[in-house]
Amino acid sequence: MQHQEKIQQLHETLLTGENNIHQLLQKLNIADQARILSELGPAERCHHFRQLERQAEVLEYLPLAMQIQLAYQFPLEQLASLMDAMHSDDFIDLYKQMPCEVQQQLLGKLSTQSLQTLRELHAYPEETAGALMSSDFVTLAPELSMTEAIETLRDIAGNHDTLYLIYIVDEKQHLLGVISLRQIIQARPDATINEVMTTDVVYATVDEDQEQVARTLAYYDFIALPVVDATQKLVGIITYDDAMDIAEAESTEDILKSGAVTPLNELSLKTAPILRLYQKRVFWLVILVFGSLLSGIGIAHFEDIISTHIVLVFFLPLLVGSGGNAGSQSATLMVRALATGDVQFKDWFSLLGRESLVALCLGGTMAIAVSILGYIRGDWMVAVVLALSMLGIVLMGCLIGMSLPFILNKLKMDPASASAPLVTSICDATGVIIYLFIASQLLF
Amino acid sequence: MQHQEKIQQLHETLLTGENNIHQLLQKLNIADQARILSELGPAERCHHFRQLERQAEVLEYLPLAMQIQLAYQFPLEQLASLMDAMHSDDFIDLYKQMPCEVQQQLLGKLSTQSLQTLRELHAYPEETAGALMSSDFVTLAPELSMTEAIETLRDIAGNHDTLYLIYIVDEKQHLLGVISLRQIIQARPDATINEVMTTDVVYATVDEDQEQVARTLAYYDFIALPVVDATQKLVGIITYDDAMDIAEAESTEDILKSGAVTPLNELSLKTAPILRLYQKRVFWLVILVFGSLLSGIGIAHFEDIISTHIVLVFFLPLLVGSGGNAGSQSATLMVRALATGDVQFKDWFSLLGRESLVALCLGGTMAIAVSILGYIRGDWMVAVVLALSMLGIVLMGCLIGMSLPFILNKLKMDPASASAPLVTSICDATGVIIYLFIASQLLF
Repeated sequence: MQHQEKIQQLHETLLTGENNIHQLLQKLNIADQARILSELGPAERCHHFRQLERQAEVLEYLPLAMQIQLAYQFPLEQLASLMDAMHSDDFIDLYKQMPCEVQQQLLGKLSTQSLQTLRELHAYPEETAGALMSSDFVTLAPELSMTEAIETLRDIAGNHDTLYLIYIVDEKQHLLGVISLRQIIQARPDATINEVMTTDVVYATVDEDQEQVARTLAYYDFIALPVVDATQKLVGIITYDDAMDIAEAESTEDILKSGAVTPLNELSLKTAPILRLYQKRVFWLVILVFGSLLSGIGIAHFEDIISTHIVLVFFLPLLVGSGGNAGSQSATLMVRALATGDVQFKDWFSLLGRESLVALCLGGTMAIAVSILGYIRGDWMVAVVLALSMLGIVLMGCLIGMSLPFILNKLKMDPASASAPLVTSICDATGVIIYLFIASQLLF
Repeated sequence: MQHQEKIQQLHETLLTGENNIHQLLQKLNIADQARILSELGPAERCHHFRQLERQAEVLEYLPLAMQIQLAYQFPLEQLASLMDAMHSDDFIDLYKQMPCEVQQQLLGKLSTQSLQTLRELHAYPEETAGALMSSDFVTLAPELSMTEAIETLRDIAGNHDTLYLIYIVDEKQHLLGVISLRQIIQARPDATINEVMTTDVVYATVDEDQEQVARTLAYYDFIALPVVDATQKLVGIITYDDAMDIAEAESTEDILKSGAVTPLNELSLKTAPILRLYQKRVFWLVILVFGSLLSGIGIAHFEDIISTHIVLVFFLPLLVGSGGNAGSQSATLMVRALATGDVQFKDWFSLLGRESLVALCLGGTMAIAVSILGYIRGDWMVAVVLALSMLGIVLMGCLIGMSLPFILNKLKMDPASASAPLVTSICDATGVIIYLFIASQLLF
């Protein structure tokens, strides 16, 4: 990709320490300016950043940790005007990260516009539409003609998040409709907005969960979604690029949970403090010990049968492992299908039936395979014990794996916490008991 | 959400079987029309679909399987004109799904425009930018003024994927620049495109991987990305909504792989044939048997020490399980960090060092805990065996979990195949050997 090679070249020149390089930097796309800055050391980053023209925009593209680092390098006055120039959602995100005394001092320096944004957006809880939305949207009155609308849009200064969807509101800011710039351009020049706009507007409410909002945006393929408050007043918009970021963050969260890791929340694996990484993992490791202890207790309970038929121990990992693996598969399928909206909680019963059939097929296959091994290493009675156990263990594993996400949801927990390690350790304990119980019934 | 309630209501009315309901349906957003149709039975879906006005657009929003089902209900003539009206990327997707003889017959009925689209887009391999792109983009000549540009855009008929980014090409279709509708509206009316357009265009090439394309789009927050062929001619665009779909599909693929399930490829968990679900899972279950067999062989090798110290079996699941769990965590973190671009393969060595530190902390914590249990149930010698084993097993588990994605990549396999079950079964076998080896050295 030619463009990327150019960036790479510039980046290398920059690393050699040439000083007037910021003129070259300046010519790049904002996102590329940010990318190159983010790969420099803190001192150099600050040095080059100071010389950029479109500082506020570049700042928005940097990871939050770097934004704060840079912010501290500016005198309060300059920082305030830098923040005034940011988009409202990024401005709020940065503001929230600052220590209380800096926030206090900033209040005296920020523009009235920024102070109003703060008042409007600061209060919404994390991960809701309210916390995510930007107040940089464009509204028009319904009685304008297309020609007037174009004239008005021409003169709108400042960096609005999008000019492509324009919301139509009454004098009290109630959302009446939406019109796209495409509609404005392509309608008869003397038609009024009232005649052309779409009145069946899809919107989100301020308290809606951000994951839901991202899913709505993706479903309708909109460039932006308006957000209204409890009185149906338009208070913000969420744009498609926010939706993409949320979708990626939510997927990452789900994937880490599936591996029994507490989500890192924007930490990079490369730079996160060792102790934080430790904290993110030790909780689940310790919790899972209890699952393993159950397996141990199961084994202890059947110590006699083990010591008389030591061949049973050879097959223990195989049987117990297969149950855990089948269970992990079920849980993974289920958690993802819930996350993408492919299945709902009300589908549980019908899914349970389907899953049982799949489990019987899987268990049957595995049972035949393991009974052959059992006959080779033991006798036909061992083969029967193994086949029965395998069938029971795989069936049980699948049902546990499928049900756990639903049970967690009922307990008001995230179904994604039904991680492979958690399912495995529950299935292990169940598997040990099924296997050794069957063995003790048939071999004694 | 008021809008969704309305949809829900309409949906329920529809299910009661009222017949003139398609007039109500007609008034909805295209995406909602598709959603409601998709929840009906095949016969009703076809019945209502036939009466819609914007059939082609609704069709695009339906899952591919339903599109084909509906397509078969139309006579060839009608099907051809329906397909002519679709966006080029959706048209190609549908066409590719049809049996060879239907494709042949369609060739005689489709418009010349569609035939050209077929020629241009049909040849690109799956999962590349070429296969994904649409040819419904808008181009303008560089010498037009803003006023002329607006006039031209006003008259552009048909359903282009976006009117918001317009690509500027020379007479040979070479990409010269890009201009946004916003720039066109806000520039001086007599300025020429040449003066205003951005010439530093970020683009993709036809053979680029779709995941990379989606990542580029998300990084720059563009509404669309142009795609050029080997001669730098503009041949298509990929829009943000395609990027969202890809990102979701890729996440699903990674998540299913992390649970040792072969990706379902658009199959729904609710409706996929049982046998297909079986196929998607049995491969990995059988592969993983070999890992468990290794554990079994390890155990068999140390049968003597087990039968003299049967207390060791009690702790076996705990030790071995902890190694597998820690390993799964490492693999999960690594696979996701690779997928989001947080780490690259060149970072492996430095990450290995960090991971060892985290593993030592985790292993240390677990070692202390398990040695207390060991002292209670056995004696201080057992406690020492357990502590040493736990430390070794967790360390080894983390290093295996972290390295496996890199090794798979070196073997030209998808790092996401380093699933929790795979890591667990490798760590299990290693854990059995570490534990019983240490025990045999210290307890005999």
